[in-house]
Amino acid sequence: MIQVATTRLSQLFLRTLRDDPVDAEVASHKLLVRAGYIRRAAPGIYTWLPLGLKVLNKVENIVREEMNAIGAQEVHFPALLPREPYEATNRWTEYGDNLFRLQDRRGTDMLLAPTHEEMFTLLVKDLYSSYKDLPVYLYQIQTKYRDEARPRAGLLRGREFIMKDSYSFNIDDAGLEEAYFAHRGAYQRIFERLGLEIAIVKAQSGAMGGSRSEEFLHPTPVGEDTFVRSEGGYAANVEAVTTVVPEPIDASNTPAASIEVTPDSPTIETLVEQSNALHPKSEGQWTAADTLKNVVIAVIHPDGTRQLVAIGVPGDRAVDMGRVEVNVGVLLGIGGEVEVEAATEEDFKKFPQLVKGYIGPGLSLDAKLLGTESETEIPYFVDPRVVSGSTWITGANEAEKHVYNLVFERDFEADGVIEACEVREGDPAPDGSGPLIAARGIEMGHIFQLGRKYAEALGLKVLDQNGKLQTVTMGSYGVGVTRALAAIAEGNHDDKGLIWPRNLAPADVHVVATGKGADITEYAEKLVEELSAAGLDVMFDDRPKASPGVKFGDAELLGVPTIVVVGRGFKDGKLELKDRRSGEARDIAVESAAEEIVREVNK
Amino acid sequence: MIQVATTRLSQLFLRTLRDDPVDAEVASHKLLVRAGYIRRAAPGIYTWLPLGLKVLNKVENIVREEMNAIGAQEVHFPALLPREPYEATNRWTEYGDNLFRLQDRRGTDMLLAPTHEEMFTLLVKDLYSSYKDLPVYLYQIQTKYRDEARPRAGLLRGREFIMKDSYSFNIDDAGLEEAYFAHRGAYQRIFERLGLEIAIVKAQSGAMGGSRSEEFLHPTPVGEDTFVRSEGGYAANVEAVTTVVPEPIDASNTPAASIEVTPDSPTIETLVEQSNALHPKSEGQWTAADTLKNVVIAVIHPDGTRQLVAIGVPGDRAVDMGRVEVNVGVLLGIGGEVEVEAATEEDFKKFPQLVKGYIGPGLSLDAKLLGTESETEIPYFVDPRVVSGSTWITGANEAEKHVYNLVFERDFEADGVIEACEVREGDPAPDGSGPLIAARGIEMGHIFQLGRKYAEALGLKVLDQNGKLQTVTMGSYGVGVTRALAAIAEGNHDDKGLIWPRNLAPADVHVVATGKGADITEYAEKLVEELSAAGLDVMFDDRPKASPGVKFGDAELLGVPTIVVVGRGFKDGKLELKDRRSGEARDIAVESAAEEIVREVNK
Repeated sequence: MIQVATTRLSQLFLRTLRDDPVDAEVASHKLLVRAGYIRRAAPGIYTWLPLGLKVLNKVENIVREEMNAIGAQEVHFPALLPREPYEATNRWTEYGDNLFRLQDRRGTDMLLAPTHEEMFTLLVKDLYSSYKDLPVYLYQIQTKYRDEARPRAGLLRGREFIMKDSYSFNIDDAGLEEAYFAHRGAYQRIFERLGLEIAIVKAQSGAMGGSRSEEFLHPTPVGEDTFVRSEGGYAANVEAVTTVVPEPIDASNTPAASIEVTPDSPTIETLVEQSNALHPKSEGQWTAADTLKNVVIAVIHPDGTRQLVAIGVPGDRAVDMGRVEVNVGVLLGIGGEVEVEAATEEDFKKFPQLVKGYIGPGLSLDAKLLGTESETEIPYFVDPRVVSGSTWITGANEAEKHVYNLVFERDFEADGVIEACEVREGDPAPDGSGPLIAARGIEMGHIFQLGRKYAEALGLKVLDQNGKLQTVTMGSYGVGVTRALAAIAEGNHDDKGLIWPRNLAPADVHVVATGKGADITEYAEKLVEELSAAGLDVMFDDRPKASPGVKFGDAELLGVPTIVVVGRGFKDGKLELKDRRSGEARDIAVESAAEEIVREVNK
Repeated sequence: MIQVATTRLSQLFLRTLRDDPVDAEVASHKLLVRAGYIRRAAPGIYTWLPLGLKVLNKVENIVREEMNAIGAQEVHFPALLPREPYEATNRWTEYGDNLFRLQDRRGTDMLLAPTHEEMFTLLVKDLYSSYKDLPVYLYQIQTKYRDEARPRAGLLRGREFIMKDSYSFNIDDAGLEEAYFAHRGAYQRIFERLGLEIAIVKAQSGAMGGSRSEEFLHPTPVGEDTFVRSEGGYAANVEAVTTVVPEPIDASNTPAASIEVTPDSPTIETLVEQSNALHPKSEGQWTAADTLKNVVIAVIHPDGTRQLVAIGVPGDRAVDMGRVEVNVGVLLGIGGEVEVEAATEEDFKKFPQLVKGYIGPGLSLDAKLLGTESETEIPYFVDPRVVSGSTWITGANEAEKHVYNLVFERDFEADGVIEACEVREGDPAPDGSGPLIAARGIEMGHIFQLGRKYAEALGLKVLDQNGKLQTVTMGSYGVGVTRALAAIAEGNHDDKGLIWPRNLAPADVHVVATGKGADITEYAEKLVEELSAAGLDVMFDDRPKASPGVKFGDAELLGVPTIVVVGRGFKDGKLELKDRRSGEARDIAVESAAEEIVREVNK
């Protein structure tokens, strides 16, 4: 048995604080600082104090054990890296302001790595050359850097943080699938051992490229990520939700499209009003769902090029720019990450054919095309609800005019279908598992099937069984280690302080000695020695001058799961044994105290 | 007993290399790369592969244990830090090109920390306020950054490297002394456990400020640092050696100084020649030791100011610019680190009173003073050998003229005494322990008494027993962790590969299975299982296709101290047990092999 040195509060580098740090908004941030686990060094950058480091090591070791269990091998890359590999994959540019860039004394461009796909790819390329060397899974637990625009919530979104990142290398897709599920399983075990509830949500892979991708979200009200789930078990982030597409409609009896005057109707609301007033529906009333809203959006390419696209969505739905951002790049054939924003007045000026408030697809109706065959053509995409044969009221590309009975794929076409609309609570889950419910979460992990994107960009090929060069297929997998610690703190506290799960606590038991008699101190020392000899990791409040109130308060703030008080009852042969989480306390006899405490800790 | 997972070479991420890396000059660099322990990511920046990381963790743990044993508490600071604290101590500037500087997305200046004095000082200031909180010793094992001009020798001088740095905080000098010696002892134990011979040498503290300072140098021919030692146990780096000062001389009978013509004698050699020819000594011959050479040096202040000084040294000694650099700042009252270089033609032009080749102190002789009372005065320092009453031939500040019988402190004076001359083998050790011997070493550790420099600059004060604010006194202590690993490799290898000390090896035993029979493989698997169950960390070469030659070669290259071969002798009931260091091999019986191997490993 390894005997752990007792943590004596008289010696420990610790100052608990009464007041919340002024910049702290969430409980984990407030309490980790107040309880002396971490301390801010710069915005989004933290120092680990002794207690924090102890818990962090426990979290890291759980991650390490589960990675080793699936045969992943630990390595350690530098944080400071040369530009070239990130240039080859275009991420030097794509990362934008999130990347910390610098130059060395010779003026060579370098970066602080936000993630290491390139370097792992190059390392495997450097050392391996045959299918016989594969598969290999490599990982590191390493300090990463991202220059977040708004570092917030303490460790939940920092600029320097610890991540476990791993990478799988396989010769074929079946191997990648296996590696992916091995990691998926390891992650489930990691988060279970960390006591973090997780929803595994389908995700879009964004700048990472590749195909299959899932996020491990920890549902919490302080989460930055919104996602949707269903009672039937579906979970996805809103970017990844696919619309349940209605059946195509037989429009053979739909009257021909016609352009009608609709004075002063530049919004969906005014259009519905004017339509009901001037061009009534044959049965019932027009609603926003009958209209097709054409939204013009500026897409900023990774190289800075600005391109306009128009998206047609049902008038009762808003466009979700986040969903547009992750989905529009592929439709436009853009490799990297794009940014999107609403088209500006200046954008509109460049395309006089766009009549604001009256924009229509107009492809088969008349000369007022949205785009032309010229270079200034504006691609036009539609929401999946715009199915073949669906009928719409939409802009006529002329002020104060709209077109009625415009049928998709009879009267107009699109350059593609895009998931662009907001996802709403109550929308059906794509897998038929019931209506969607909105939730908030923190991304704790992410698994990606990268495929061959990085291997191709960096030339990672190995000889296959037939002696032919094959590009390797890769997966990339991350766990936010420091973030996990914060999430655990966030989910395990009350108004008095932290409440650590037993396997992550900075000690097994917190012994508080209060009261004046030398016999109390003497006995407490003896008890601590016994507990330590029995293999417990003991925190011992032996501060001679601190008041009982300060000691009890600190014990609750620090959050060790079991608290033992050697105090008032001692003269009657009793100690108090308290469970930090439930708050329940009971007296135990001095004679059998050590055994009782060991039993409590191991129960 | 914790059972360690066996390292199987069929699975291990490893490719041993036959050829030395082209950029490698020293054995540790070559072998650590060839044996697959590390891999270069950029100049002076390395990736740790699985075996390397395993050894590194063992080194770190030895350091950690010894630091904990003296009551130091582990914390962990960020590497990416704000500029302000380093500005307050002037190190933002003083570090020059060695500091990696960058800006974040808001344009805030940041740095990658080369060492953390400022941050530790601020942390203690942040949390502590009373003498009762002291002493406290804090340490971290952390990644550091220095943009070395010439990263070289692999891990011996890298740009990203791991250091253990610790800092002590005390209320008084006696406390600092205690902290200093506690660290000194811990360092002695660390290097002993790492098997690194160490010379503790007196050092000048340079940019760190403060008073007492010692370096832990590991003597090795590949070392960059030169130092001197004596048979009697003295050791110091050449910057720190103090000259054994001769007794003052009674010059009452020395004739008056006189200026003599010495045509074409701008060097010591020509001067000695001309003196012996034209102005012979009363007894014997003039030698260079009779002359006083006045060397003009440019001192560049931390703020860029360029200042000339002149230094008078015996003509038979060269000036050591390194010794001047560490010693001149204090004499000039400059706080930070200075640079020095020989005065240039341009410098000389600015001071026409300096007659090159004929410069003299000239203070009491005539109007041709070296300096004047004006602002352009050039301070004049002398070597400690220039004692009161010593008599010299030196420049007369006029072309082709020298002055004879010039007596120090009768005829001329100096603004101070400086340790400026080269230290030579054979010079007496300052502590009387015999003549000095030159040696080369690598700096493995460094301990400093910083004193109050950082605490004053950053305002770290605490209340003393009388309720008065006192500035805290500090020590700073460093161990190069990655460098230690390299030094161990450097000192433990032969032409076949690495030879790890047992307590640092990546495994206890390396089992090689060679030969074709299925029984060999089967038995080897069983043996490995037994050894692992007995608590040994086993490396197992189970590669089915590798030849015996490759397997033996790799076993020697990788350097596990005990090698067991299950091969040719197996059919006769024998295994081969080999000691990697001595090369001795003996046969052991299959029946008792496991016990025998365990005994060998634990012996």
